[in-house]
Amino acid sequence: MNLVPAAPLDVLRTRTSEKWTEHPADVIPMFVAEMDYPLAEPIRAALHAAIDRGDTGYVSSSNPVFSAFRDFAGRRWSWDLANASFLSTADVSMGIVEILRAVTKPGDSVVLTEPVYAPFYDLVTEAGASALVIPLAETITPSGTIERRLDLDALEDAFRNGVRAFLLCNPHNPVGLVHPREDLETVARLAAEYSVTVVSDEIHAPLTQPGATFTPYLSVSDDARATGFAVHSASKAWNIAGLKCAVMVAQAEHTAAVLEAMPLEVSWRTGQFGVLASVAAYRDGGAWLDGVLASLAANFDLLDELLAEHLPGVTWTRPNASYLAWLDFRALGWGDNPAERILAEARVALSAGIDFGAHGAGYARMNLACAPGVLTDAVRRIARIPRQR
Amino acid sequence: MNLVPAAPLDVLRTRTSEKWTEHPADVIPMFVAEMDYPLAEPIRAALHAAIDRGDTGYVSSSNPVFSAFRDFAGRRWSWDLANASFLSTADVSMGIVEILRAVTKPGDSVVLTEPVYAPFYDLVTEAGASALVIPLAETITPSGTIERRLDLDALEDAFRNGVRAFLLCNPHNPVGLVHPREDLETVARLAAEYSVTVVSDEIHAPLTQPGATFTPYLSVSDDARATGFAVHSASKAWNIAGLKCAVMVAQAEHTAAVLEAMPLEVSWRTGQFGVLASVAAYRDGGAWLDGVLASLAANFDLLDELLAEHLPGVTWTRPNASYLAWLDFRALGWGDNPAERILAEARVALSAGIDFGAHGAGYARMNLACAPGVLTDAVRRIARIPRQR
Ligand SMILES: Cc1ncc(COP(=O)(O)O)c(C=O)c1O
Ligand SMILES: Cc1ncc(COP(=O)(O)O)c(C=O)c1O
Repeated sequence: MNLVPAAPLDVLRTRTSEKWTEHPADVIPMFVAEMDYPLAEPIRAALHAAIDRGDTGYVSSSNPVFSAFRDFAGRRWSWDLANASFLSTADVSMGIVEILRAVTKPGDSVVLTEPVYAPFYDLVTEAGASALVIPLAETITPSGTIERRLDLDALEDAFRNGVRAFLLCNPHNPVGLVHPREDLETVARLAAEYSVTVVSDEIHAPLTQPGATFTPYLSVSDDARATGFAVHSASKAWNIAGLKCAVMVAQAEHTAAVLEAMPLEVSWRTGQFGVLASVAAYRDGGAWLDGVLASLAANFDLLDELLAEHLPGVTWTRPNASYLAWLDFRALGWGDNPAERILAEARVALSAGIDFGAHGAGYARMNLACAPGVLTDAVRRIARIPRQR
Repeated sequence: MNLVPAAPLDVLRTRTSEKWTEHPADVIPMFVAEMDYPLAEPIRAALHAAIDRGDTGYVSSSNPVFSAFRDFAGRRWSWDLANASFLSTADVSMGIVEILRAVTKPGDSVVLTEPVYAPFYDLVTEAGASALVIPLAETITPSGTIERRLDLDALEDAFRNGVRAFLLCNPHNPVGLVHPREDLETVARLAAEYSVTVVSDEIHAPLTQPGATFTPYLSVSDDARATGFAVHSASKAWNIAGLKCAVMVAQAEHTAAVLEAMPLEVSWRTGQFGVLASVAAYRDGGAWLDGVLASLAANFDLLDELLAEHLPGVTWTRPNASYLAWLDFRALGWGDNPAERILAEARVALSAGIDFGAHGAGYARMNLACAPGVLTDAVRRIARIPRQR
């Protein structure tokens, strides 16, 4: 496998996106979920050509991203989307909000399983619903790391007590959890039993490591298809979040009708360059993606070594998907928000664990989609913060 | 003034946007508001460079489009935005919906002045409000063309009777009406008197012809600033609607607070390439824009000649802004929706007048942002449709 190397730092510093403008130049940015790799060649080529022909108007109503995604999902996950319904919009967050708006009434409860992608809390509020937060179940393995799963008993209790929807993070950011198929089957069975709509955010799915198996939620059963939606995007895996394209998926008549009934403008919000880049990604971006996954796996190994050598009190569970390390700083006694101290004293920007939920206290999230040298520098900097006794 | 020529047809046919994919190749597309010009050179350069550095992540929270727009508005319209508040989002439609969501309660009435941009009706519905439609006032000039203005008396009646907001199209699509300053002053006075929020959609403003004077709504008075919002975008004038960037503007404390209170995700929806292209447009796209305005003015002259020669029954009022011709086909007896017949028999795709409101019956909207040869071909084709007596 050819690794995909990160772009050189002097190029990255000329990027104008959030990752490279939020902090001064002495800070190593490892917070927002943007990657430091150069764009995949098929995406570069597609976008350069689009500029040259001035192809910057509205997305076509016969949007080509649907068939490109369907083919990718079939090849990569054996997910049969032949009879699926699709609707595109600007991004996964917008897709989630619009689905929740459609299926909830003001004040309805939507389950979140924390620690989870922080903006999920805002999306539920934006849709006019309120969040009911259930922690992931944790088991300590013999080697001392924490293994996480959905807490199916707690979910059943919540479903039984009248929640309207469950916003599932599949795979689960920030812990990189690829849910076992049987857990998703149970979720689907419970969702059908208690009439709960499941919205499965599958944005990290293409970033599943070769050793793990991503299961599309809708693929697990008729129950899942009858009660669920999936939201996909090429934006995380190919680093094109700024180009604005996500795809909502329905595989039952009545969920398809929900997509069909959405305001017209929802799909006009899709970005044309998001579509062009996503089509290139899904059709021709597989080799690049596999290279990125290998680069990330190498960084996971490196982080293990670096922590053992420089920060032995800090633990993490190697993710099965995505590029985010959920680091447990609690043994160091740096308080509920170690990211704050790390930014101030080590000039490394991590995401604050507490933003992901109460179980994030003492944690910070580190973005590993960077050069090994940057990762090494960051851990060394953090290690130089004076330890408390 | 150097005209900006349209891109060659064989290049345009390779575009994948709505304008070039909705109809088969034998149809001349003159419907959706996309232009046939090549991208402005500063935009091309900015986007090519962004691809090469992989700058496709999230829009920076210190979004550079605000100062670029502020400077452009100052230079072009003497609009002082030194103390303005800004918020960006994916597009003008989204900005309108979010402002209406914030200022209306379910079922509140929002005034539209028809004939008006068809999706306005959907946007009001999407925000949970209902549209109260007031026709533009029409005067027949001595030369027989129709002059349109806001019907200020009807607006006052509506405001007095408890509408919550007025969605102002400024300049007004599809009729190319650049509202006289005194009309906007009256609107602002009435809005303040009856506590009506005015949302001024100013997307067509940069496309105002040199002979007319665009007045930013918020610039007319303290009343306007106290009760109003503006929504701007470089998307129409520089043909970058697919890149997804619009700017909401507030110039009073309590309207700024409305923008401030919007869900966080509203501004994350902004496209990074929309920002980069808009900054290039506002900072360095003025010469190109002036060239486009000259090319459009030449097409307005040409359309006058072509109609006189080939379609003498069809009338229009030359627009003071944008590139849309609101064509009155009523004398030809082609029914309420001449666009349908024109598509079927002449293979020219216009926008159906009736979609813009009841006063659009018998009208069709023609997009003139094309090569003179294309316009000539289109009018000749339409002229070959057999006339009814
Ligand atoms: C689980 C999850 N969902 C959604 C998003 C945001 O996606 P988008 O930018 O398409 O809204 C992210 C971004 O990191 C994420 O991790
Ligand atoms: C008056 C008006 N407002 C809004 C829009 C749509 O703008 P956007 O694509 O930014 O939502 C258009 C498009 O033609 C328009 O004419």
